Amino acid sequence: MTFRYSNSVPKVNDNATAEIMKAAANPEVISFAGGLPAPELFPVKQMKEATDKVFDLYGEKVLQYAGTLGYPGLREQIVDIMKDRDVDSTVENIAVSTGSQQAIDLVARMLINPGDVVITEDPTYLAAIDVFKSYGAKMVGVPMDEDGIKTDALEAVIKEYPEAKFIYTIPNFQNPTGRTMAVERRKELVRIANEADLPVVEDDPYGAIRYAGEFLPSLKHFDTEDRVVYLSSFSKVLAPGMRLGWIVANREFMAKFMLLKQNADLHTDNLTQYIVSQFLKDNDLKEHIKTITDAYEHRANLMLKEIDEQFPKNVKHSIPEGGMFIWVEVPGVDTNKLFDECLKHNVAFVPGSAFYANDVKQGTFRMNFSNMTDEKIVEGVKRMSAAIEAVTK
Amino acid sequence: MTFRYSNSVPKVNDNATAEIMKAAANPEVISFAGGLPAPELFPVKQMKEATDKVFDLYGEKVLQYAGTLGYPGLREQIVDIMKDRDVDSTVENIAVSTGSQQAIDLVARMLINPGDVVITEDPTYLAAIDVFKSYGAKMVGVPMDEDGIKTDALEAVIKEYPEAKFIYTIPNFQNPTGRTMAVERRKELVRIANEADLPVVEDDPYGAIRYAGEFLPSLKHFDTEDRVVYLSSFSKVLAPGMRLGWIVANREFMAKFMLLKQNADLHTDNLTQYIVSQFLKDNDLKEHIKTITDAYEHRANLMLKEIDEQFPKNVKHSIPEGGMFIWVEVPGVDTNKLFDECLKHNVAFVPGSAFYANDVKQGTFRMNFSNMTDEKIVEGVKRMSAAIEAVTK
Repeated sequence: MTFRYSNSVPKVNDNATAEIMKAAANPEVISFAGGLPAPELFPVKQMKEATDKVFDLYGEKVLQYAGTLGYPGLREQIVDIMKDRDVDSTVENIAVSTGSQQAIDLVARMLINPGDVVITEDPTYLAAIDVFKSYGAKMVGVPMDEDGIKTDALEAVIKEYPEAKFIYTIPNFQNPTGRTMAVERRKELVRIANEADLPVVEDDPYGAIRYAGEFLPSLKHFDTEDRVVYLSSFSKVLAPGMRLGWIVANREFMAKFMLLKQNADLHTDNLTQYIVSQFLKDNDLKEHIKTITDAYEHRANLMLKEIDEQFPKNVKHSIPEGGMFIWVEVPGVDTNKLFDECLKHNVAFVPGSAFYANDVKQGTFRMNFSNMTDEKIVEGVKRMSAAIEAVTK
Repeated sequence: MTFRYSNSVPKVNDNATAEIMKAAANPEVISFAGGLPAPELFPVKQMKEATDKVFDLYGEKVLQYAGTLGYPGLREQIVDIMKDRDVDSTVENIAVSTGSQQAIDLVARMLINPGDVVITEDPTYLAAIDVFKSYGAKMVGVPMDEDGIKTDALEAVIKEYPEAKFIYTIPNFQNPTGRTMAVERRKELVRIANEADLPVVEDDPYGAIRYAGEFLPSLKHFDTEDRVVYLSSFSKVLAPGMRLGWIVANREFMAKFMLLKQNADLHTDNLTQYIVSQFLKDNDLKEHIKTITDAYEHRANLMLKEIDEQFPKNVKHSIPEGGMFIWVEVPGVDTNKLFDECLKHNVAFVPGSAFYANDVKQGTFRMNFSNMTDEKIVEGVKRMSAAIEAVTK
């Protein structure tokens, strides 16, 4: 039969990104395309120990249905994590989500009617673009510089779209640019949101993975009017396969969130919530994060050094202080064509076009360093240089 | 701030069901209100063993991001489970969902535009009603009798709403009625759907939990035109806390499903998928299900016996052949008032009004037997009898 799909389903399967990931998955290819953490740093042994304890201590309880907002024990630990991030919260402000992807999806569903305007950084996280578009949002991008979103441009956009529904931003080590929003910009963004009475969705999956520069308070920290909805995740600090994220928002918002979360999956995997809670009791999360940031700092610096040495002199790139990505600009190059050329050289990245909701800035691409050995970083950048040379000569 | 919510968010928090569940959660109360499996039958020890093996065998792999449609090893095992249910499928037809609740939500999102008609049994699963309504569906219910949905009434409804988007049905031990669709009705429903060119969403969480009568083939078994989207779950046969369900549909549908599943949570918990897969390798699922059905058969028969002996003679009830629920009709009684009276007697159930999308059939309620000791079944029915007497005298 031919199904009559709703407007939520993309009319054309836009497989560009899927095709890129598929090509990059060839084992011959050195892939800087993905966004995966380093699996060799996953605390497998400690997770196993935590799991054994959970089965011994809680038995059948963790296998039963549970509350929609998540295991209260874990939510209490998230209150502490938020305290470390300079945000005051209580268990009632927090829900566990099935990865922060689910929180993005549900918050979007809570706020977007078809035709509503959503303001994002340009470029931004591609799976957020997909979500917002599936709810019928009109996406309006705000340009960035090295200090993150340009707040004067944001103000101009809001003047043009005063009925916008919310601002979506990734202040720390943004995906895809690796850039971090300066502290003055953060204050300014919250001031602008207050003035325009706009909600802010602050997506912070990478914030804890800082290996350079100083800790910067989140937008939520500067939020005096409960308008910031803060999202984060255990995916980058522990393990993404367990799909555990969280949302911090005011109670009225959480009551509505609960209704849609219940519709979506009743609750997040209870066993996994207990495992991570036990892990946090028995291990020092900060020490574990130090291991990750040390490794990522080394990999980022090596990749930056190789880029500086091997790419043409007119190439520009971001200098991330954390996270997993470097953003590269190669003036005058069609990076989709460069991608095809790179595949011939058995190396891959993600062309910038994937990250723009509307007008693509040509000559850009994203490189991932977190999931890569030193040898592959050196060899992969060498291969990319050859490919760049081939398409620009 | 005051958030401007989308139309997906219920305007009024309809807390009726939540309030019922909250009241029923009082430890003094014997609650027949829930829909929980018996936790003492969860295979905790075997799950722990499977988990240890998974960490030893697969290590970091299970903690990493994974494919959106689910772990292929588990999907192959689901192909075998489907074969036992007389349905031929391949790994490509199957996706793992975060509980079958997520599959209901995503399939609804794939098919419903605001204003679209969805046809369901009347009464039906309350969290499916919530989902369909949140996407703006107009719900049209079809009456049932002891043999399930009345197919002549279904035909009449389709004649009235030829533009309906799909039929949602729970053929086995339906929630809330416990009734099973007769085999002739199944064939007839598929024939009607073929003629009207309508998709059928077949929700089968309980089908494997049959303790009486004969196995009946699913609607999917009779589906020659790929119009049945079949949903099931490990929640009732293993453990609901792990949130593992699945969907079986044709490939074109699965390609679209994948796009929305990716938006929703990227993929279902990878660790849990591996654990259940390992459990299925090392244990005999059918033997485990036998343990469950033996226990549920005993509890259902005890509850039916107590109802027959203690409730007034004009009370009618379903006689389930599996699953977890009995549907009771008490002519002339407002079962919401009866609920309040029952709380005074420290016993609870769910009033029928929760399960009707539109016109409530008065004098009905649902009782759960799966999650209850013999003593509590006897004592709880006694208390309910006293409450019924109090409101009818």
